[in-house]
Amino acid sequence: MKLAEIKAQRLAESLDYHFHGLITAVVQDSTTKEILMVAYMNREAVKKTVTTGLAHFWSRKRERLWLKGERSGHFQEVESILIDCDEDAVLLKVKQIGYPCHKGYASCFFRAVGKEGLKRILPHIGDKNKKGE
Amino acid sequence: MKLAEIKAQRLAESLDYHFHGLITAVVQDSTTKEILMVAYMNREAVKKTVTTGLAHFWSRKRERLWLKGERSGHFQEVESILIDCDEDAVLLKVKQIGYPCHKGYASCFFRAVGKEGLKRILPHIGDKNKKGE
Repeated sequence: MKLAEIKAQRLAESLDYHFHGLITAVVQDSTTKEILMVAYMNREAVKKTVTTGLAHFWSRKRERLWLKGERSGHFQEVESILIDCDEDAVLLKVKQIGYPCHKGYASCFFRAVGKEGLKRILPHIGDKNKKGE
Repeated sequence: MKLAEIKAQRLAESLDYHFHGLITAVVQDSTTKEILMVAYMNREAVKKTVTTGLAHFWSRKRERLWLKGERSGHFQEVESILIDCDEDAVLLKVKQIGYPCHKGYASCFFRAVGKEGLKRILPHIGDKNKKGE
């Protein structure tokens, strides 16, 4: 095993996967500081993210490891990984290729709570046929 | 029931509490855009946050509703609430009073993954006896 892999494994083992073996991951654009999405990682996703430099998650829907951008080419190049005080959440600072949201927005948080219900606050930029995943 | 409460309840009912009745909440400083913390909300926490304008969460440790700052005075004044595409995560943009982290840092994400393990990237600013909670 390579040294980088040993380190990745050590990190992956040290975290607290509190929700059914998953840890919460927040993804932030490293330049604009906008929050792009929230997803979940298991140990394997943490290891893969550290060793490849590309964001990997655990897809709860498909129940498998998910390389973000594997279908769309909308990869997230990870520039830094921060860990929270309780070691049960990670923050990925990334360079986003394309857009992150499978619904075609520059952030999955494209709606805000307004006086009259949810209000869209971002323009639709994505190709509906080319999902962000 | 007041109109604001009805609206808050409608929002609270519309979300997807996918982890044992909880939704993931990311808290971001509305001015600096730094991520302050990640916590979890149940329906009651969403309703209380909307109606009071102060961040409320579900404390998994204490198993009760938790007004952030109830012990420390380190409240989070909520300026906007964003909802993600799958309606199972919320983003609170807040004005932080004091500091958010119970370990005494300006963000719970005060450590980064470095070549030699975790590295502290923020100075310690908090009074250890006055927890951020």
